[in-house]
Amino acid sequence: MHNIIDKYPSRKSQQEQIIPRVDPVIFGKSDHGDPYALSPQQLQHFEREGFIVLQDLFSPEEVEKLKSECDRLVADETLHENEEFVTEEHSKIVRSIFDLPKFSGVFDKLSRDRRFLTVARQLIGEQVYLHQSRINIKPALDGKSFPWHSDFETWHTEDGLSSPKVVTGWIMLTENTPYNGPLFVIPKSHKKYVSCPGTTPENNHKQSLKNQKLGTPSLYALEEFTKDGEEVIGVYGKPGTVVFHECNIMHGSPDNISPWPRTNCFFVYNSCDNAPVNPPFGAKKLRPKFLCNTDTTPLRPL
Amino acid sequence: MHNIIDKYPSRKSQQEQIIPRVDPVIFGKSDHGDPYALSPQQLQHFEREGFIVLQDLFSPEEVEKLKSECDRLVADETLHENEEFVTEEHSKIVRSIFDLPKFSGVFDKLSRDRRFLTVARQLIGEQVYLHQSRINIKPALDGKSFPWHSDFETWHTEDGLSSPKVVTGWIMLTENTPYNGPLFVIPKSHKKYVSCPGTTPENNHKQSLKNQKLGTPSLYALEEFTKDGEEVIGVYGKPGTVVFHECNIMHGSPDNISPWPRTNCFFVYNSCDNAPVNPPFGAKKLRPKFLCNTDTTPLRPL
Repeated sequence: MHNIIDKYPSRKSQQEQIIPRVDPVIFGKSDHGDPYALSPQQLQHFEREGFIVLQDLFSPEEVEKLKSECDRLVADETLHENEEFVTEEHSKIVRSIFDLPKFSGVFDKLSRDRRFLTVARQLIGEQVYLHQSRINIKPALDGKSFPWHSDFETWHTEDGLSSPKVVTGWIMLTENTPYNGPLFVIPKSHKKYVSCPGTTPENNHKQSLKNQKLGTPSLYALEEFTKDGEEVIGVYGKPGTVVFHECNIMHGSPDNISPWPRTNCFFVYNSCDNAPVNPPFGAKKLRPKFLCNTDTTPLRPL
Repeated sequence: MHNIIDKYPSRKSQQEQIIPRVDPVIFGKSDHGDPYALSPQQLQHFEREGFIVLQDLFSPEEVEKLKSECDRLVADETLHENEEFVTEEHSKIVRSIFDLPKFSGVFDKLSRDRRFLTVARQLIGEQVYLHQSRINIKPALDGKSFPWHSDFETWHTEDGLSSPKVVTGWIMLTENTPYNGPLFVIPKSHKKYVSCPGTTPENNHKQSLKNQKLGTPSLYALEEFTKDGEEVIGVYGKPGTVVFHECNIMHGSPDNISPWPRTNCFFVYNSCDNAPVNPPFGAKKLRPKFLCNTDTTPLRPL
């Protein structure tokens, strides 16, 4: 057991509650002196809105290589037995692949590419490790939606991350358009925290990775987030576009009925001083390592 | 039995085929001399693209009244027993209400409003009747998607409409945005016809109204439609916006994960000389009257 105070209680009652964020948004140094760092204006934008989109950060050739590597992982059916490969709820289509460095040197390198790691350190602090990594594949025609959620709600409740000192950087491997199930975010929502009702059942991840039911806000909470004219925004871009989104920003994505797949690769950078505590704050035990890495060795830049 | 040639065979084999449209797009008079008629430019646009959007055709006060009437129908649970009221596949939430004039004088009048009827006559011919009418409600957070389809494929195959001499006019009762499951169309797709594989089972509408499985194009067919740079387009607008879309245009809509409902009211105007033939072209018998009206008395303008 541990005595760490639960600053963001969730799944501890049947009441939903919106509570304030008690931590800053940016933990690193603003004057980073690295050519890959965000500018002061970009940092301000991230602090205020909770996300930032960096168009075309990777070249078409680079993306092509990443895309091929992803295709290789999806095509290799011998890999599908691994728990890191999650299929759609009602089919055998691959929906997500977790712990990318385990299966791919290409994606291991990508996670340490300075275009990701410099910004992650700037936002979170010098010492970061990969809490989680994944590719989400939304196949054309029937890629399924992800309901609204704050990543941090799950990472705090089920993975024992005490503070929102963790950020997701991700790259579009296919174009993200209004039509192929893009990410929707609610700007500024990262400054409030939705404490969700319910109790986490054992092995909740087996359900939540296919269709998350716990830790999702009510319509009432979403209306609270959008009532001051804060609208939903769709995150669109060409392949090679990189997005950083704050761990507590409210986001979700509709299904993909378009003829174009939507494939994105995510890296979750956590501060080494924010490692999982056990037991976590709203579940009996930590999730498996492919979701909640407990090897907090700092990442070394490429 | 009848001897009418099947110009648009579908669900007669296990092969999907894309065949050309052999009918014109516009059947009425272009010089209509009615202030509510489309201009020659608007007609050209409709002919070429297969749809036209008329922003803010109804005032906020008019829309408010229509919205209240819709809310009344949804709230009156005694009505839900009627087959015209279709719920979502896995819940009791109302998804669609059909045959609006049967339940509502307000919507009966709306179907004969000159802003609809003048344009319908201009596109289809002087004598039109209501083949079908419906409100589609996509509730906030969990309104379900409609897969890609051509309306005409079903109306021909299951309702016995020989020719694509039928058009849908519809009004947005709530704002349609990129976020609340809007209609997506493939411009110009109305000039080709996807002959779909399969055989229509008895009472197919009981499944298709909740989740259409037959009469939907394959990924291959969709790629054929979009390969010449014809992109998907989302149809967005404020409440009161009216859209006319050609009966054979390929369209669909994703689910609605947003906090805003998406409610649209549709009127399907068929030419009186294109009445259902029995049996229809790809099913044993016509669908029920609330889907396939056999009273072809011409509509009288309000």
